[in-house]
Amino acid sequence: MSHYHPLSEAEAIEIARSIKEVFPQDGEFVCREIGDGNLNLVFHITQPATGAGIIVKQALPYVKVFGESWPLTVDRARIENQALIKQGEISPGLVPKVYKTDTEMALTVMEDLSDHVIMRKGLIEGGVYPAFAEQISEFAARTLFFTSDLGMSPQDKKLLVQSFVNPHMCKISEDLIFEEPYYDAKANNIDEAIRDAAEANWADEELKLEVALLREKFLVSAQALLHGDLHTGSIFVTPESTKVIDPEFAYFGPMGFDIGAILANLLLNFAAQEHWSADEAARRDRRAYLLNTVRDVWTLFEAKFRKLWNEQGTDRLLGSAAFQDDYMRRLLQDTVGFAGAKTVRRVYGFAHVADIDSIPDAAAKERAQRLALAIGTSLIKGNRQASSIEDVIRIATEAAATTTAAATAES
Amino acid sequence: MSHYHPLSEAEAIEIARSIKEVFPQDGEFVCREIGDGNLNLVFHITQPATGAGIIVKQALPYVKVFGESWPLTVDRARIENQALIKQGEISPGLVPKVYKTDTEMALTVMEDLSDHVIMRKGLIEGGVYPAFAEQISEFAARTLFFTSDLGMSPQDKKLLVQSFVNPHMCKISEDLIFEEPYYDAKANNIDEAIRDAAEANWADEELKLEVALLREKFLVSAQALLHGDLHTGSIFVTPESTKVIDPEFAYFGPMGFDIGAILANLLLNFAAQEHWSADEAARRDRRAYLLNTVRDVWTLFEAKFRKLWNEQGTDRLLGSAAFQDDYMRRLLQDTVGFAGAKTVRRVYGFAHVADIDSIPDAAAKERAQRLALAIGTSLIKGNRQASSIEDVIRIATEAAATTTAAATAES
Repeated sequence: MSHYHPLSEAEAIEIARSIKEVFPQDGEFVCREIGDGNLNLVFHITQPATGAGIIVKQALPYVKVFGESWPLTVDRARIENQALIKQGEISPGLVPKVYKTDTEMALTVMEDLSDHVIMRKGLIEGGVYPAFAEQISEFAARTLFFTSDLGMSPQDKKLLVQSFVNPHMCKISEDLIFEEPYYDAKANNIDEAIRDAAEANWADEELKLEVALLREKFLVSAQALLHGDLHTGSIFVTPESTKVIDPEFAYFGPMGFDIGAILANLLLNFAAQEHWSADEAARRDRRAYLLNTVRDVWTLFEAKFRKLWNEQGTDRLLGSAAFQDDYMRRLLQDTVGFAGAKTVRRVYGFAHVADIDSIPDAAAKERAQRLALAIGTSLIKGNRQASSIEDVIRIATEAAATTTAAATAES
Repeated sequence: MSHYHPLSEAEAIEIARSIKEVFPQDGEFVCREIGDGNLNLVFHITQPATGAGIIVKQALPYVKVFGESWPLTVDRARIENQALIKQGEISPGLVPKVYKTDTEMALTVMEDLSDHVIMRKGLIEGGVYPAFAEQISEFAARTLFFTSDLGMSPQDKKLLVQSFVNPHMCKISEDLIFEEPYYDAKANNIDEAIRDAAEANWADEELKLEVALLREKFLVSAQALLHGDLHTGSIFVTPESTKVIDPEFAYFGPMGFDIGAILANLLLNFAAQEHWSADEAARRDRRAYLLNTVRDVWTLFEAKFRKLWNEQGTDRLLGSAAFQDDYMRRLLQDTVGFAGAKTVRRVYGFAHVADIDSIPDAAAKERAQRLALAIGTSLIKGNRQASSIEDVIRIATEAAATTTAAATAES
């Protein structure tokens, strides 16, 4: 850490200039700091003459939220760039290229993806991403399979586990996902309109038992190298392309945590469709698209994962069809449970999602929040009985129908 | 590793002489190398004038078996002495004191326990150890609880996981316990008389599914810092004292693996009681003692573990009674399954146990082997249905009765 200091724009440009792969010729550079300033500096550096661009990202040694500042290790930059490199090897084309890293300076120099849009924003604006389910399922299947004992030597895996020990970032997940939403924690951010729903969760022993079991898996189960924060804000998309970014929460954990994060964020957007108060047909269409995407992500993931297992499994002994079926059943159940936990925390936990928070109409926003909570808690409570992705579709569909019926009765 | 070389007796004495805690005065030393020469050098150094003694143990960079020699990392010495130190802090008096360590030389200088006997030998000779269940359950409850997320900060635990990554020693367990016994592996050591029983296991898909599930837990579930090889050959006893030694297989794994190892080795001795062909009463008495010990070890372990959880648990959220009951039920089931796997591998896998192998009468030895296999496979197949330690007692009792009935019918 001896040389660490926050990068200036001039320094960022000098680093960019050294990446001959992107900028073979020297010339004028334009630099813009585009980070939100809370966690990282993100410099977008372009060369107007050629149109080429690059990202220089530097971790800051603190996190700023609500005006407060907490220390946060910049080791997360090492985790992030090592994860990006590993994911890029395993799953080429689905993460930004890494051109250069500097551990002391907590730097990652990587591909400019400014032709893509952050998927959360894209979904809020009504975007449709026909390649997404295929590509994100490919990313998840390959990165999870090839970093598990199914797809690599258990001995090499143990060394990889060692290099991705990530206590500070895991602590954030432990607190925000598995703890604070289940009691009256200061850090929760609860809209007064739905406080009764939060309180109901705090008193729900069945729900809390399931959350404790999911949390135990998050703490104990070193199945594979996870992205660790695979929501739609960590995914860049175009209609043809999907790129997963920001794996600073990467660590060896339960696979269902990553797949569950994808599904949860599709379901949060599904709940947010309450904003179409005046156009039931538009809402129905949009929801059908989102649920089809939920179904496709899991179905394609499962098919790809099983194919990798059958064709490239390194582990003779875990190769029986009965074991594989049992494994996939448990993986689906974990996915359902973690999807639920990741849905609930985004409604009244510390950090919300723009899908719901940006709804201007208060009544529609409240309905969206209650719907997301109904889906999330049902997924959590039902996770150990889930036997098919259709269980998730059914839970979302029924909860939405109940919400619509109640809204109609009220109006 | 630059300075590593196998220690001479003279060097071992010099090291002993420096431990003023044990040898406050200089004088004559006597040194005897008492290791089996396959894995480690073990120097027992005494001072005849005072009667004081000490052990200097050095890991060798290879393992010798059947005249062959394989390389084996001496990092296991670091693992062993770090585990001994940690266990000694958590569970005082139940492991040898560590006086000095030297990572480069792969050395551990520790308490002389030559007033104790190796428990396997003691049991074979008919010894009775009234303090054993109380003390070994204390060791297991404390070491497992205080290195789990229940008894320490999940963040500190992650760093401890990192320092106990132990791929080479885990590979030995993976191969010998979970793999080779389930196919016709070269390394298996099968008495011709019971080859049919081994072959039956290789063809038993139900058994192999359960073994694959147990192996998955061994590979993935980082519950607590295990001893990793807690059989009766790793335990020194007197009627009043229990000391656990040799934790070179230590790593973060499923708790049931340690408790299961204790139970398995009591059950192997239980099976070996077939040697009393002419004295049914003596056999019955001995078996009752062993099964009572099995019951006591689990029952005391469970009570102590729950007490630690209730009184010293660091984890507010894992504190509900329903979660604790669910956790203990799963822990029992893991214990049953791992006990089964550890029993089977000792009958016809690479490394047997003297309890059975030392039976001179061939028919009695075969009966003991078949009985151990019957118990082991029943434990494995029944692990996910187990609800009480009485399930283990019943399986052993019924298998022994069947063996006796068959032997009587034959004679």
